[in-house]
Amino acid sequence: MSPDIETLVQKISRLPGLGPRSARRIVLHLLKNKEQNLEPILMSMKNVNEKVKVCPICFNIDTFDECCSICSDNSRRKDIICVVESVADLWAIDRTSCFLGQYHVLKGLLSSIEGRGPEVLMLENLKKRCDENKVTEIIVALSATVEGQTTDIYIRNFFKDSGIKITSLARGIPIGGELDYLDDGTLLTAFSARG
Amino acid sequence: MSPDIETLVQKISRLPGLGPRSARRIVLHLLKNKEQNLEPILMSMKNVNEKVKVCPICFNIDTFDECCSICSDNSRRKDIICVVESVADLWAIDRTSCFLGQYHVLKGLLSSIEGRGPEVLMLENLKKRCDENKVTEIIVALSATVEGQTTDIYIRNFFKDSGIKITSLARGIPIGGELDYLDDGTLLTAFSARG
Repeated sequence: MSPDIETLVQKISRLPGLGPRSARRIVLHLLKNKEQNLEPILMSMKNVNEKVKVCPICFNIDTFDECCSICSDNSRRKDIICVVESVADLWAIDRTSCFLGQYHVLKGLLSSIEGRGPEVLMLENLKKRCDENKVTEIIVALSATVEGQTTDIYIRNFFKDSGIKITSLARGIPIGGELDYLDDGTLLTAFSARG
Repeated sequence: MSPDIETLVQKISRLPGLGPRSARRIVLHLLKNKEQNLEPILMSMKNVNEKVKVCPICFNIDTFDECCSICSDNSRRKDIICVVESVADLWAIDRTSCFLGQYHVLKGLLSSIEGRGPEVLMLENLKKRCDENKVTEIIVALSATVEGQTTDIYIRNFFKDSGIKITSLARGIPIGGELDYLDDGTLLTAFSARG
């Protein structure tokens, strides 16, 4: 293996979920038929690399000219904004097609341990959007962790006097979840929120 | 997700060992910090794509000017050639550093089912190399499968009258292998080849 190929294997092995063995397998696959395997990926990567930006409105990462594919989609409701922790969460919610409003992507959750204060939430920005678009509901769709809950409460407090309805995702038993495998916290929540 | 990013996710999800979920995770990782993640891989891929070729001597896939890093390495013995099925096998043997000779990479194993005849072995080419470099030993390092064994026998027959010593990899119990988990074939071979 030449140093060039070795470098590529090393770089690919550092991607999430991969290791040296899977990286070698991928590189070999790419090299074996470079016209059909390596070049299309290379072109696609180059294209994305040139165009990818952070959306100035919702902070989504996307390829666009002025604002991301969600903010520029006129078929989506403008009066409802979903707050998510990351682009991964945005993609996950968007795959379900259950939400056809706007997003606000945080730069992270509040965390005193990792030194992330309210500035990562960019709430002034969100407030300005709410005023401009006459937003009626903000859905806080954060993880059910301590940091997620802290951030949830902070956002609720921030918008307390704004007249905007603030909702959070429901907590309970996940679909397909078996009772005896659930943790106590989830069971307790599911019991007290029964309906 | 814009169509550009979706295309990249799709292409990456078709790589060996990956699927839609791991591809999305990898693409997000690349996009999140494009200067540190996406661009180095892109550069490395571009570099490899420009330089990668099939070695005209041993048919290894590598980045080189005249012949591959193994054929052009003068510290390696020229009088011993190891026949392997694929570049993956060449890499596997080369990682052990136990063999410091030359290679001959087949285009596949003989297979009547998949219609691969002796032309995939390129033995005329190997013979010419043997004559030019006064090769004394050919190691046939093929898989212990039906196709591997058929190809092994074919190569032995081809070089029958050449005076070159033809050897194959030893068959037996793999290191770390437990007896009661081994298949009958391996056990039988290990018994009859005991020493």
